[in-house]
Amino acid sequence: LVVVFEAPVAVAGVFTKSSLPAACVTWCRDALKNGRARGLVVNAGNANAFTGKAGEETVLKTAEFLAEKIGCSKDEIFVSSTGVIGEYLDDKLITSGIDKALLSISDVDEPWNNAASAIMTTDTRPKLVRKTCMIGDKLISLVGFAKGSGMIAPNMATMLSYIFTDANIKQEALQQILRDSVNTSFNAITVDSDQSTNDTVLLFATGSAENAVINNSEDSEGADFRRVLGELCLELAKMIVIDGEGAKKLIEIEITGAANKSQAKEVGFAIANSPLVKTAIAAADPNWGRIVMAIGKSCKATSPEKIVIKIGDYEITRNGQKSSLYNEELVHQYLKNDQVKIWVDLAVGDAIFKVFGCDLNEEYIRINKDYRS
Amino acid sequence: LVVVFEAPVAVAGVFTKSSLPAACVTWCRDALKNGRARGLVVNAGNANAFTGKAGEETVLKTAEFLAEKIGCSKDEIFVSSTGVIGEYLDDKLITSGIDKALLSISDVDEPWNNAASAIMTTDTRPKLVRKTCMIGDKLISLVGFAKGSGMIAPNMATMLSYIFTDANIKQEALQQILRDSVNTSFNAITVDSDQSTNDTVLLFATGSAENAVINNSEDSEGADFRRVLGELCLELAKMIVIDGEGAKKLIEIEITGAANKSQAKEVGFAIANSPLVKTAIAAADPNWGRIVMAIGKSCKATSPEKIVIKIGDYEITRNGQKSSLYNEELVHQYLKNDQVKIWVDLAVGDAIFKVFGCDLNEEYIRINKDYRS
Repeated sequence: LVVVFEAPVAVAGVFTKSSLPAACVTWCRDALKNGRARGLVVNAGNANAFTGKAGEETVLKTAEFLAEKIGCSKDEIFVSSTGVIGEYLDDKLITSGIDKALLSISDVDEPWNNAASAIMTTDTRPKLVRKTCMIGDKLISLVGFAKGSGMIAPNMATMLSYIFTDANIKQEALQQILRDSVNTSFNAITVDSDQSTNDTVLLFATGSAENAVINNSEDSEGADFRRVLGELCLELAKMIVIDGEGAKKLIEIEITGAANKSQAKEVGFAIANSPLVKTAIAAADPNWGRIVMAIGKSCKATSPEKIVIKIGDYEITRNGQKSSLYNEELVHQYLKNDQVKIWVDLAVGDAIFKVFGCDLNEEYIRINKDYRS
Repeated sequence: LVVVFEAPVAVAGVFTKSSLPAACVTWCRDALKNGRARGLVVNAGNANAFTGKAGEETVLKTAEFLAEKIGCSKDEIFVSSTGVIGEYLDDKLITSGIDKALLSISDVDEPWNNAASAIMTTDTRPKLVRKTCMIGDKLISLVGFAKGSGMIAPNMATMLSYIFTDANIKQEALQQILRDSVNTSFNAITVDSDQSTNDTVLLFATGSAENAVINNSEDSEGADFRRVLGELCLELAKMIVIDGEGAKKLIEIEITGAANKSQAKEVGFAIANSPLVKTAIAAADPNWGRIVMAIGKSCKATSPEKIVIKIGDYEITRNGQKSSLYNEELVHQYLKNDQVKIWVDLAVGDAIFKVFGCDLNEEYIRINKDYRS
């Protein structure tokens, strides 16, 4: 995938928290200091991670090559890779690909669909979302696409997403708005609790909508933009979970009544990542004891008699034991849905967090035994 | 399972760290304050966890029943349960079982084998280890058995183990010796990262070997006992991992050069619990990038160029990239073994820890979609 902007645009980015990030992530973090972009290059199949000095060299040559072709500084070029870790990535493969892409770049049919497809690895379908919003009296467009279906966990594992808007927003504000949106979307999903070396979300804002510039992430003029960007990120994030390797169900887990947000998040992810919870839901089995187990292992300060668990609208527990309202057959029928909800109230405070996960099926094992990702 | 001691014996115990422990775990923690035991009752099939006041009542009635039968105080009776969480456990089922067991308790053939079988749930085979050691000039016997094959993680998830010895050891010393042994055995294994509400390890010491009493856990006279108890616990722990639901391979993960033991443990468990590492090893696929991924997600302070990864005796990485010695075919052949070893040196300190895990196969999903555990 090659993206070229005719003039410099504002860019914001959020990256993996892995302590062993890929060479391209380190490059993007540095390039982001200028906050301006002219181009983007993404390859799928080779992550260029844990590739040492040679890997850094490949990124440098990639950026230099495109910068020279389009006439800009190399630190206005952003680079991402996804695929196998630890294999040398030959820069000639990338630069010859750039050459080919540039020949047809201005007359691609369906450019967004093509872009979304170009970055896929084990994804079964492209993930693309378009939205509009208003800033003042200007209509603003947003379009974003993403890839990822395994090695997905908090902090955006094996997940790439690129979002483009014509809004006019100062780079510092753009960065903060993106970070806030990512926290409750891409950083609230998990497929398998694993976390990649390459995760990247980049948001490019061209300013061509010519709205009065948004200088601050909290500006009231930007409220609609923030809301819609949040929705766009969450839709892409849910698409990743639904496309999770072997996944058949989206599981929404809402934790309320936590002492603080980090406790809510920890309990939510413990439930979402528990192989026993995931397999029970795959089988539409209301084995809610496994939810109790996941709460017990992740949450230190709570009292059993205060915790309330619901699956869908069905109350499961009350007063530290099975609720008198519990009807196993009804919950079993409910769990046959494609999208299911688990709600846990910890009754120790006011903090909430929502996590999105998926069920675990034999196909996950099959894909990951076969595929070198 | 019913065990009766003719006279009070010293007892030590280590339990789950779940904040939602089963009623029987709470009971045992309290009973342990006296440090003396006359009896033990274990049932399989129902965990008596998250069962509220009714669950506590069942444990109390169980202990009172056996105490009256054998003539002792109720807090000399230890009780464990394993099985489904959240279902009411009828004390009549347990007390009638005790009645039956007491009829034949003194003339059971193969009592240890029977005991090891009685506590099984999804285990495919009983797990029993016998050892001897010396304290002074006295020959000491140890025999232990365990159950557990899913919901196994640090802190002894869904794992029950009972160890018996004729050594004469003061209760406080016994407790410390048991805790040390558990830390590097039962608390160093993982099958699926889940952690149960019921985990219990109890060590009973009758003193009938009539050795000079060991008063302190560090006493040099107890060195052989400590070593052999550690071996016994580790053998039982490895049996649990090898019998992990659907597991075909034991994976030993040794972390060296960590800043401290907790970092070594965290990285070891991140590798052992990664579904992507576990599936790669199931397929004998030397996809070592997944090990890099697990190190990166779990370990904040390290430098890629210093980390060395070995699989078996094969050096995989060096200087932050694939080692020049790496030969994929050789490592692939090595990974076909039933027991494989991963070694990671973080090169930031001197701390080490060894974790034992297993591979992840379709059978794990099948068992946990079908079985109400």
